[in-house]
Amino acid sequence: MNYPKSIQNLIDQFTKLPGIGPKTAERLVFYLLYQPQRELFQFGEAIEHLKNSAKQCQKCFNFAESDPCHICANSKRSSSQVCIVAKPQDIQAIEKTGAYQGLYHVLGGNINPIENHYPENLRIKELITKVQSGTVNEIILALNPDLPGETTSLYLIKTLKQYPQIKITRLARGLPMGADLEYADEITLDNAFKNRQLL
Amino acid sequence: MNYPKSIQNLIDQFTKLPGIGPKTAERLVFYLLYQPQRELFQFGEAIEHLKNSAKQCQKCFNFAESDPCHICANSKRSSSQVCIVAKPQDIQAIEKTGAYQGLYHVLGGNINPIENHYPENLRIKELITKVQSGTVNEIILALNPDLPGETTSLYLIKTLKQYPQIKITRLARGLPMGADLEYADEITLDNAFKNRQLL
Repeated sequence: MNYPKSIQNLIDQFTKLPGIGPKTAERLVFYLLYQPQRELFQFGEAIEHLKNSAKQCQKCFNFAESDPCHICANSKRSSSQVCIVAKPQDIQAIEKTGAYQGLYHVLGGNINPIENHYPENLRIKELITKVQSGTVNEIILALNPDLPGETTSLYLIKTLKQYPQIKITRLARGLPMGADLEYADEITLDNAFKNRQLL
Repeated sequence: MNYPKSIQNLIDQFTKLPGIGPKTAERLVFYLLYQPQRELFQFGEAIEHLKNSAKQCQKCFNFAESDPCHICANSKRSSSQVCIVAKPQDIQAIEKTGAYQGLYHVLGGNINPIENHYPENLRIKELITKVQSGTVNEIILALNPDLPGETTSLYLIKTLKQYPQIKITRLARGLPMGADLEYADEITLDNAFKNRQLL
């Protein structure tokens, strides 16, 4: 016995999504089965039209309503700073702080041989072109402090060494807000000591 | 700064699903953004047409391609046995075993005051009608062995007491396959002892 075709079809579609297994997919589909057709229609339309107003900015490779995006097109933002992030969601997180007024560059992932992500799969060539244009003074590495992030940072530092006029920085390492010293991991605490700040 | 409208819209749609929070929704939407438009179209269509071939059987309240469903319509299945399940997915699990040749009745949940599920929200009236028709000899309670499942079972036993000709049974309790006695919980082990089988 199998589920009716339309149920099985939607279970299969949900199972393609990352982190969604067949049982979760089943649960989601049965939830949707009890929703009014109007809701299903809105959800379906939202998926089909996802790319309608989401264009990829050809300068920073973020997704935005326009190309160039409103950050790249904003003349008030400093074009001498470029912040390197792995994915568009990271820009969202940084923008929320309001702490940064430069531009971005979305790499499209990190170097991670296990997941078949090599330097040639990332937007490094586009970064070099940006650097060669001569307007960039500082590259801020805002990659995750984990193995793939560190590998990518090291690779970028090595690659950008040939442009000595460019300052390369990375986000500070230390204790996150709300941390408990007792439970902080060794590397974090080590970083917090090494980079201690003068008050 | 916000996401483009179509991205935010789809994040909102995913967030409505049970167990999907805003961060998971974001991850799913960004995964979809990198998929070809053809895939998005198929996914969207699958949601919009979910109810097209999924009809609710008006006898057992399972979802099937036809009404009555192929189980209720199958004359080889014994109509004297009715197995009570909480949700359609449970039928799928039982059918996979091939151990049962009777009919089903989907209650549509369990009694659970915390989630505002009361007896009147379940298909108990429809069950009584089925019982009064006179063809049923045995009601098999196949509800989860947890608090809401037990509450519902007790309620059904009490309600069905007025039809003494009907045998009420419930699925056996005991050790599941692959269990480790050392780690079995007390209630399971207690059940396994009380219901020990003669070999």
